[in-house]
Amino acid sequence: VVNRSNGLLPKSEPMLIECIPNFSEGRDPATVDAIVAAIRDAGVTIVDHSADPDHHRMVVTFLGAPEAVAEAAFAGAREAVARIDLTRHRGAHPRMGAVDVIPLVPLGETPMSACVTLAHRLGERLARELALPVYYYEEAALRADRRDLARVRAGGFEALRGDQAAGPAPLEGERTPDAGPAAAHPTAGAVTVGARGPLIAYNILLDTGDVRIARQIAARVRERGGGLPGVKALGLYLESRGRAQVSINVTDPDRVSLAHVFARVRQEAARLGAGVAGSELVGALRVEDLLAIARDTLGLRDLDPRQMLDPRLTEGVSQHGDTETRR
Amino acid sequence: VVNRSNGLLPKSEPMLIECIPNFSEGRDPATVDAIVAAIRDAGVTIVDHSADPDHHRMVVTFLGAPEAVAEAAFAGAREAVARIDLTRHRGAHPRMGAVDVIPLVPLGETPMSACVTLAHRLGERLARELALPVYYYEEAALRADRRDLARVRAGGFEALRGDQAAGPAPLEGERTPDAGPAAAHPTAGAVTVGARGPLIAYNILLDTGDVRIARQIAARVRERGGGLPGVKALGLYLESRGRAQVSINVTDPDRVSLAHVFARVRQEAARLGAGVAGSELVGALRVEDLLAIARDTLGLRDLDPRQMLDPRLTEGVSQHGDTETRR
Repeated sequence: VVNRSNGLLPKSEPMLIECIPNFSEGRDPATVDAIVAAIRDAGVTIVDHSADPDHHRMVVTFLGAPEAVAEAAFAGAREAVARIDLTRHRGAHPRMGAVDVIPLVPLGETPMSACVTLAHRLGERLARELALPVYYYEEAALRADRRDLARVRAGGFEALRGDQAAGPAPLEGERTPDAGPAAAHPTAGAVTVGARGPLIAYNILLDTGDVRIARQIAARVRERGGGLPGVKALGLYLESRGRAQVSINVTDPDRVSLAHVFARVRQEAARLGAGVAGSELVGALRVEDLLAIARDTLGLRDLDPRQMLDPRLTEGVSQHGDTETRR
Repeated sequence: VVNRSNGLLPKSEPMLIECIPNFSEGRDPATVDAIVAAIRDAGVTIVDHSADPDHHRMVVTFLGAPEAVAEAAFAGAREAVARIDLTRHRGAHPRMGAVDVIPLVPLGETPMSACVTLAHRLGERLARELALPVYYYEEAALRADRRDLARVRAGGFEALRGDQAAGPAPLEGERTPDAGPAAAHPTAGAVTVGARGPLIAYNILLDTGDVRIARQIAARVRERGGGLPGVKALGLYLESRGRAQVSINVTDPDRVSLAHVFARVRQEAARLGAGVAGSELVGALRVEDLLAIARDTLGLRDLDPRQMLDPRLTEGVSQHGDTETRR
């Protein structure tokens, strides 16, 4: 089971999917607003949206039934393709598309298969109507070597486009898209569409402007470097703040809490003579993730989701509340 | 406003009250279960219940409409008075009644006045049907010197009962009850009934068995000793664990987070050569309190309740989700 329902959802809950598209625009408010409006008008619930001028990237988090989610993601993508020109785009965050990545996450009792199906349907439409090469990743991947998003995106828009003087490079061999044209869109590149479990996008700001320190920390905390399980990390420089940042994805939040990640980054930073200046969450968090932070930082080992008071969370509690008396 | 609704409750929400009665039994499972069952059978939603053998005390947290809450609190009290004999009760936690304290907390848009009214009505019934002297505290207090629970309870059951050899002492002067007989119930003492804002009951276990260290820490962290605002604290010895504990009430959780309290206790403990072995929550916590822990421990300064993903929390989000894009 990828998404723990924390026991509060009845089995009969309608299918609910979270979608967190990332677009390569973090500076122009008109474009940011237009993309958010296009998504909202499709009838989904927007949980969060944020834009980062240094990453030059925006992230929208929304929820809805499968059809509405696909419609909203497409509407946002269409707006992004019309407005964003990657040939003039420079940002700290890796990207290969105007609409760079569209992850779909099953919530509640929704099966992962519903997101895989939806990813493929959405990808077909993006290919057909927006002339985008489409790559499927993680659970939606059609080839084993495309499960890992970073690998699919390696080289970014520039590698995809090839040497423009020689005309657009054909996308062949390793780069053959799963759907759509065999050439990058001239201004919008390509799009990755995936189905996956919950992921926490979490950035830790350092008190130094030395991006090499951020990169060394990233290399040590990421799973690939022998760090924390399910953790991906990049060291980035944030020009507007004059500081370096460790930009992190926690892909298995039930195994590694944000507190765990934060403590490890702080420890690695200290070894390199740097400190942590703060952190930020991009997108959404489950209550379960907050409980994990409290457990890890305050030693609240027995903390139980049923101890949460907010009425909307406790609506379903009567059938669960009759717990064993804790001791 | 005492209870922040975090913006998710529509104004038309029916009145909802939280009640957290404390009973002087933490060891006998039959009595614990009987009290919980009596409360549950009155038709409220039990969020949590716990029993502590060292405190020799149990705490039940439940929610409901005012009438159901009063009925459930009374049912629990009747069971406690029938079963608990304070003349043979020794525990680490201060108490003066078999049903020691019954706090009522307004949730959502429920006004405090509803809890004050309910406290007085419940108190009248406890006095009349169970022959308990009743003291009203905090917002339900009828005298300024009864706002503070610790002051009302000073001396506990033993002071209330007086010297048994000379017959029961009349409750007069400072001890004149607000309702009920002017003598302690011979086995169940007296009851305090109050209306108050949200409070977090939070215990921090030390790695030492020296209760003097716990008492010194308590004296430094509590507001009365120049510590944290709204914090009350006691140092207790837990015989079953052979360890000392700082037992804390955070009465203004919007000003002081649990992370803040934990850090301060750890710091004071370190000064005294002791460490923290863990902590525990008694009763319930608001999502807002968890967010405060994440903000304080991870430097997640911009964390917003709207970033919480759980479907039941986000149901009401559509009208709020259209936030300013965060930067």
